[in-house]
Amino acid sequence: MKAARLAPVAAALLLVFSGNVFAAGSAAAGQTFLWLAVILALARLSSLVEKVGIPGVLGEMVLGVVLGNLSLLGIGFFERIGDDPIIAVFAELGVVILLFQIGLETTVADLRQVGARALAVAVIGVVAPFLLGMYVIGPLFMPEASASARLFVAATLCATSVGITGRVFRDAGRLDSPEARIVLGAAVIDDVLGLVILAVVSGFVQSGTVSAGEIAMITIKAFGFLAGAVVLGRAIAPHLSRLLARLNPEMPMKLTLLLSTGLGLAWAAHHMGLAPIIGAFAAGVLLEPLFLGDFNAPEIVRQLEPFARSLPEKEAAAFRAKLEKHAGHHHEQILEPLGHFLVPVFFVYTGMQVRIETMLDPKVMAVALGVTVVAILGKVLSGLAAGSANRWIVGFGMVPRGEVGLIFAAIGKALGVVDDTLFSVIVAMVILTTLATPPVLAVLLKRQARREAAIT
Amino acid sequence: MKAARLAPVAAALLLVFSGNVFAAGSAAAGQTFLWLAVILALARLSSLVEKVGIPGVLGEMVLGVVLGNLSLLGIGFFERIGDDPIIAVFAELGVVILLFQIGLETTVADLRQVGARALAVAVIGVVAPFLLGMYVIGPLFMPEASASARLFVAATLCATSVGITGRVFRDAGRLDSPEARIVLGAAVIDDVLGLVILAVVSGFVQSGTVSAGEIAMITIKAFGFLAGAVVLGRAIAPHLSRLLARLNPEMPMKLTLLLSTGLGLAWAAHHMGLAPIIGAFAAGVLLEPLFLGDFNAPEIVRQLEPFARSLPEKEAAAFRAKLEKHAGHHHEQILEPLGHFLVPVFFVYTGMQVRIETMLDPKVMAVALGVTVVAILGKVLSGLAAGSANRWIVGFGMVPRGEVGLIFAAIGKALGVVDDTLFSVIVAMVILTTLATPPVLAVLLKRQARREAAIT
Repeated sequence: MKAARLAPVAAALLLVFSGNVFAAGSAAAGQTFLWLAVILALARLSSLVEKVGIPGVLGEMVLGVVLGNLSLLGIGFFERIGDDPIIAVFAELGVVILLFQIGLETTVADLRQVGARALAVAVIGVVAPFLLGMYVIGPLFMPEASASARLFVAATLCATSVGITGRVFRDAGRLDSPEARIVLGAAVIDDVLGLVILAVVSGFVQSGTVSAGEIAMITIKAFGFLAGAVVLGRAIAPHLSRLLARLNPEMPMKLTLLLSTGLGLAWAAHHMGLAPIIGAFAAGVLLEPLFLGDFNAPEIVRQLEPFARSLPEKEAAAFRAKLEKHAGHHHEQILEPLGHFLVPVFFVYTGMQVRIETMLDPKVMAVALGVTVVAILGKVLSGLAAGSANRWIVGFGMVPRGEVGLIFAAIGKALGVVDDTLFSVIVAMVILTTLATPPVLAVLLKRQARREAAIT
Repeated sequence: MKAARLAPVAAALLLVFSGNVFAAGSAAAGQTFLWLAVILALARLSSLVEKVGIPGVLGEMVLGVVLGNLSLLGIGFFERIGDDPIIAVFAELGVVILLFQIGLETTVADLRQVGARALAVAVIGVVAPFLLGMYVIGPLFMPEASASARLFVAATLCATSVGITGRVFRDAGRLDSPEARIVLGAAVIDDVLGLVILAVVSGFVQSGTVSAGEIAMITIKAFGFLAGAVVLGRAIAPHLSRLLARLNPEMPMKLTLLLSTGLGLAWAAHHMGLAPIIGAFAAGVLLEPLFLGDFNAPEIVRQLEPFARSLPEKEAAAFRAKLEKHAGHHHEQILEPLGHFLVPVFFVYTGMQVRIETMLDPKVMAVALGVTVVAILGKVLSGLAAGSANRWIVGFGMVPRGEVGLIFAAIGKALGVVDDTLFSVIVAMVILTTLATPPVLAVLLKRQARREAAIT
């Protein structure tokens, strides 16, 4: 259609859009549709940075930082997205879906194989930042702060955000590397350890004392949840899968089994005081691809079976194998469209939480940079326990604090321990560790891939 | 694993679940995960009624009615889902996705073919219920009601919910029948006409007068939006599709193009005062499968191309055709998992809005039944304009008032024209027409299919 023919239509549209008739449907939903459409479109465009070797997740987060701070240039439109409570839920759903997907790509055997290493990395990754926080950051950067404030900063440094790192490993196609497994395992353990520390520190700050019994109870609860979910889940899941497949063996039922388990355990983790993503990851781990056989193969496999049968036996096997692998049959393939829809919402939303103006004070900036360096150092040290795996990749994989760090800071602020400046410092540290990790990790992974290629 | 081995784990889980450590992450999101998991699982199970020939959508709505009214039996747990504003947004997103999917399965050519018939059905479907409302329901069932109240009831009777009918046609695999196209076209026109009527009636009720100029303006705006969206959209979409595919020709970009268009137009329709589903339907119609070629074929097509090439020419063509059809390449296939996740939320949520206790008064019940009979009669009359298509299927396809009717009733209540009893009557009529349609339509469609089978 020629542009000239569009002019009257455009004019009519302008007229039409000049005002509301009246609102049909809920205003909140209508607004949400716009935000989701805008986030989705811009996030996909900004993840095009992958073409020049920058991780897509970094593009999405930087997009969020830009959109969230356009008000500094007088454009307030996008700032409202970052304050929208419904978009916040979509963002959290996005990161739950992401960790569920990562869990689905991880098996219990994978984790067991790296179990001891992951535990060692996790422990160093908590102890080192905590000690550095208490005895380096405290005296050096916040000499006037109270003991409680120091404790809180130290606790915040212990957090690990598995979402950011997991996404970088995933985008690089390295989720099945020993490094990824160690980091994923360690990050999950760290989240639980961090929870215990945060609970202890919060208890201490509030009552001035905390008993060994309370600490033990919190620890048992947290680890009990994880172990219980995976053990009980793996005992129930095969039977449930077979039962549901007998009721209806098609894809929608399989999708329902997947999503209800993922969302259900995300809620259960939340209910336990853990981050919902930990529950989603556990759900992904316990749902093994072995249940695939309970459900019908996708339409395309059924449609192409006559072709397979017409082939010589050996070729037929190869054909079926390819068909099986790429037919969209696997758990993680079914979730792909959902992930592509919801995951970017999380990263853009996280970026939007950055308030650039709080970091413009040079003194705050300097302290934030110092704290960030120590924060990176503390986690990189944990790489020392990586054994034969690449220490730098494991160490840097543990660096991002992500939303877990933000939650810690928010709780400290709510308790009155963390003041506005300290909050800005913590937020800056969380952001800097989160933004710095994807590019560093991408370079390290590329270097490793080159080295492997050189050897073989 | 033996059950005996599970006992200690179960005991540990019980201990673990006995209390919260503290809440990490937003409470709203955690709760939402649980609601979504529960709705999804129960909805999938309740749609198993399809096995005995009952439409799945009816199972989901009845599930909603049951869950929403369990408080009558002292179980208040599920009632909170129906009051949750975030679940309301997910429900509206669900029906937007559904209408977008239905739009994708509908082409402009389809609609043009049935255009005149659909317009005739739409006009009768608005005029007949309105007149019956004013001159039958008014004197017969609500002799004491004000002229404004009568006007409002008559206007509510004009609504058509394309969501329910579309889902029934879709579940029955009859979306490409002439009847489905006429009803879809007529329902879209009706939504716009209903909007005009509602705007006029609201204006009259508020100011006691309404000018012909205002009516004209509202009509132009509403139809201008629809025509403008489709015409402008179809002019822009091919270029946009080619541009985006050049930037990144993989599935995530295609999904983004689809969802951003669907959600963007849903918002635009909402912004215009139309129901968001109308915008989503328009978006689906304007995105033709012809843009598929701009993007890369799915992995499975690429992987199996060597096999295709090894076949004799004629077989290769058949193979490629099957591959193309079932590869999950098509717009509507990409959206399937999203639809299976979100669409049931809408139908369960709609069912939950039913308050059984408001209908327990025998007098209210009698009036509601009378109004419902007239409401069904008014829309079934519109089937007379269906020409060579099956009049009963078209007529009954127009019957459900669905969420559009509920919106009308809510506006009337907000304006103070509709009192509590009248509101209950309208809600009962909306529910009864909505619940009655799927089974009747299913029987009619099955009878038609049998007749067709007998002829051929």
